[in-house]
Amino acid sequence: MSVTVAIAQINPTVGDLEGNRQLVAQWATTAHRQGGHIVLFPQLALTGYPLEDLALRPSFQRVAEANLAMLARQLDQAGAGDAHVVVGSLGINADGQPTTTAAVLHQGQPTHRHTAPYLPHQSLCPRPGLHTTDQGTDTFQVNGAKFGLAFEGVTVRQGAVDTQAGMGALLVLGGSVFEPGKVRHRANAAQAQAEQVGAPLVYANLVGGQDCLVFDGGSFVISPTGALLCQADQFRQDLVLWDLADRSPRPALTDDDVGATYQAITLGLADYVRKNGFTKVVLGLSGGIDSALVAVMAADALGPEHVTGVAMPSRFSSPHSVADAADLAGRVGLDWRTVPIQEMVDPFLTTLGLSGVAAENIQARVRGMILMAVSNMEGHLVLATGNKSELATGYSTIYGDAVGGFAPIKDLVKSQVWQLARWRNAQATARGEIKPIPENSITKPPSAELRPDQRDSDSIPEYHLLDPVLEQHLLGGLGRDQLLAAGLDPGAVDLALHLSDRAEWKRRQYPPGPKVSTWALDCNRRIPMTSRWQEDKA
Amino acid sequence: MSVTVAIAQINPTVGDLEGNRQLVAQWATTAHRQGGHIVLFPQLALTGYPLEDLALRPSFQRVAEANLAMLARQLDQAGAGDAHVVVGSLGINADGQPTTTAAVLHQGQPTHRHTAPYLPHQSLCPRPGLHTTDQGTDTFQVNGAKFGLAFEGVTVRQGAVDTQAGMGALLVLGGSVFEPGKVRHRANAAQAQAEQVGAPLVYANLVGGQDCLVFDGGSFVISPTGALLCQADQFRQDLVLWDLADRSPRPALTDDDVGATYQAITLGLADYVRKNGFTKVVLGLSGGIDSALVAVMAADALGPEHVTGVAMPSRFSSPHSVADAADLAGRVGLDWRTVPIQEMVDPFLTTLGLSGVAAENIQARVRGMILMAVSNMEGHLVLATGNKSELATGYSTIYGDAVGGFAPIKDLVKSQVWQLARWRNAQATARGEIKPIPENSITKPPSAELRPDQRDSDSIPEYHLLDPVLEQHLLGGLGRDQLLAAGLDPGAVDLALHLSDRAEWKRRQYPPGPKVSTWALDCNRRIPMTSRWQEDKA
Repeated sequence: MSVTVAIAQINPTVGDLEGNRQLVAQWATTAHRQGGHIVLFPQLALTGYPLEDLALRPSFQRVAEANLAMLARQLDQAGAGDAHVVVGSLGINADGQPTTTAAVLHQGQPTHRHTAPYLPHQSLCPRPGLHTTDQGTDTFQVNGAKFGLAFEGVTVRQGAVDTQAGMGALLVLGGSVFEPGKVRHRANAAQAQAEQVGAPLVYANLVGGQDCLVFDGGSFVISPTGALLCQADQFRQDLVLWDLADRSPRPALTDDDVGATYQAITLGLADYVRKNGFTKVVLGLSGGIDSALVAVMAADALGPEHVTGVAMPSRFSSPHSVADAADLAGRVGLDWRTVPIQEMVDPFLTTLGLSGVAAENIQARVRGMILMAVSNMEGHLVLATGNKSELATGYSTIYGDAVGGFAPIKDLVKSQVWQLARWRNAQATARGEIKPIPENSITKPPSAELRPDQRDSDSIPEYHLLDPVLEQHLLGGLGRDQLLAAGLDPGAVDLALHLSDRAEWKRRQYPPGPKVSTWALDCNRRIPMTSRWQEDKA
Repeated sequence: MSVTVAIAQINPTVGDLEGNRQLVAQWATTAHRQGGHIVLFPQLALTGYPLEDLALRPSFQRVAEANLAMLARQLDQAGAGDAHVVVGSLGINADGQPTTTAAVLHQGQPTHRHTAPYLPHQSLCPRPGLHTTDQGTDTFQVNGAKFGLAFEGVTVRQGAVDTQAGMGALLVLGGSVFEPGKVRHRANAAQAQAEQVGAPLVYANLVGGQDCLVFDGGSFVISPTGALLCQADQFRQDLVLWDLADRSPRPALTDDDVGATYQAITLGLADYVRKNGFTKVVLGLSGGIDSALVAVMAADALGPEHVTGVAMPSRFSSPHSVADAADLAGRVGLDWRTVPIQEMVDPFLTTLGLSGVAAENIQARVRGMILMAVSNMEGHLVLATGNKSELATGYSTIYGDAVGGFAPIKDLVKSQVWQLARWRNAQATARGEIKPIPENSITKPPSAELRPDQRDSDSIPEYHLLDPVLEQHLLGGLGRDQLLAAGLDPGAVDLALHLSDRAEWKRRQYPPGPKVSTWALDCNRRIPMTSRWQEDKA
């Protein structure tokens, strides 16, 4: 008799035990109705993931356990008791320490459990020095076939799954986040694991945003020889079914780094807004490319009617800045208003006698206060529009343009900002729609417009020189000599390194945003704020 | 022949390899001149500690290694080549991974090395689930006596140090931060280790502030039976010498949690200011207890002439608020000014039509902008004056009173703020000085004064009910049922838990400040920002 395995690629919410239970029950029941004998959910699907210190609270542990038992009964009552539902949840080991648990629910009961230690301090964003360990598996039988249970990131040794050829599979509860090239990386790792245990590997990933992480889905079944036997979509909930005897290959997902990065950010943004109980966002529109891209992403994520753009011109704003912002708002259909800032800036200038950087910063800070005031009055989440090139070099005003609850493009270097803007416009053209981003916002030289004729390049290297330095410095931890040996522009290398190590204190206070690179500044890289090390002099 | 061991309890700066080398050379030379055959420095003394990702940079690793070799030659040239100088630095193992290294420098050469993996992501603030591992030791001989080398936090097994009774000692390179009760805890751990290896244990700790950590010194020698044979001061650099044959007990340091907490904060603040190249600080003076305590701490840390207090009254400020602030400034001798905020607040109120929370917050944010403008114009570091009770419950205005580069009392609950204020005043009285903190600032009911007749207790529980809830919730991770079972006030429990889990997003953007509790909110505890878990309903 054959066995059909369903992968339920769902988007749970951290801490919403009742909501997640209903979600799991609904998807498991649907999967069972469609013929699934086994329904595989991702890691910690019932609790949400990652839990950080919530995993340590006895109250949370107790309610998670109670919800698992309730789920087993609920599935039985819903007529899905015959299915073997494999659901990830939180457990406790004999030492009272939290475990990530794979429970098999069948006939109203948890019938099997596979566990591994859950280390809440161990970030999902790996940093050098973190390693996973080998571990065994637990197995259960369905219709005479044997299935092993494993967690992503834990290697199952050869022979650990006793599956005769064609008579079983390794079920992996995944929880892995978007990064460029991750589709291929994940498939390669899964194939190696499938080959090692000599059985197909069924991989169920989470989908959805959680703080700075975006789980991208893309669940699959892969054979020991690397044939893709089943494939779920990326960036949305999905249910796919696979028959254990089916060995016919499917078309594989490929890594589309630009489009996928765009989708990862909009998913991360949409989920941060929704899961935190917001319905709308507000951001400053400067007419520049950063705020234009964020506005379009927000409109794609939430609908343009839920996005408020505020133009906040000063006496240094160029005529095109408000015009470009208005153009964008019209193209996208944003909620849109203009608040000139000068009459709020002037009392600070005169009372405090400000000049120079202080006078420049006060403009950015008045803008930040206006956005926070709109948020306080109307309930928007404020979006910060800073990019990774700015964060890396500290080229932003803390408590000014750095104000916000979420920073969608903080992990995109400026070159990527332009690239994604052009990609989004090309998508629109291909669909016969108006390009959302005005060409002028893409092509004009970047300027903060805080003093007359200011250019970003007055303070930081040109972006086409800066961005490669940042990427190689962050990616490989390359120091000055290595960057120069790699042929990067010496002036850009020295200025970037000089600025980068000195801006850590600003980065620590910056709002969270989705990690979409291999080495994000906030979760993958961390240097001391207090440090006299001069990388540019090394 | 006898052997004298010197403990050089120094305050290095992270990344300042040349400066630290000079510091080590100077202290080692002095110790040698005073008769030290061995001079023991703390962990990573040459590089500063903790290094976070600096430890991963090949450039940093290379320069650290070069400075170690230079130090060996420098000591020889300074006439201290006969000494065995044990200095902590950064090394690389065969896999290219960073190590914490204890190098013995003698006659111009590194003659011995003891190493252990250095995991830069592993915080010095332990979180549940982190464990240290056992490890061996390396030994070297001086005048026929044998000395073992070990790092703090790594247990050396029985028999690992082959020291005949009276013929050697275990030298421990420490790097351990202040916490209440830590003196006793450290002595107990050291005695257990000394007993296990059957030899006296020489413990050299760092002293000084590094970002949110305060190393408190208090180095010592302890015998296998727990006799304290040598003791260095807490909270300052110190050099102490001990003869290997000396078994006469010394008076032990005791834990003085109130006074030590005060000193830990002033040391952490002084070092953050100095090591980051600032000379002066600015803060808002509200007349309340939080800003009063921070101002006095800053004056103690930096001298009152380096502390600027700004009173920023609004139409809701009570008459006593400016009077109390002025009283404080006069008592302490602060640089002092008044900037009424109303004319800067009004344009926001009228232009944006603000009311309610938006109108309250704009006042706090105008104050934050004024302080940042003073900083931009005059080069002060801005101090935030929020306490742990406020941070835990989110009772602060982000980008308002939360503005700052450093937050000295962020790890003190409000009850401790009052306690330290009274302690500081009592110290003054005992020294025949004027009490620095006006009695009215200590005794009046706390209020943010952002609307008429506002009281903190309108929004959060009374502090005498709130603080015990926070301490037990954070310390033990206790959930609602456990807190209620412990007899805490049910209303305070539910309101505190409700507010606490919802304020994580604000805490993530709060400035750094010294950890002075066992479970600090920022480095020891971390929960998801996005979470629907309701601890108060559990």
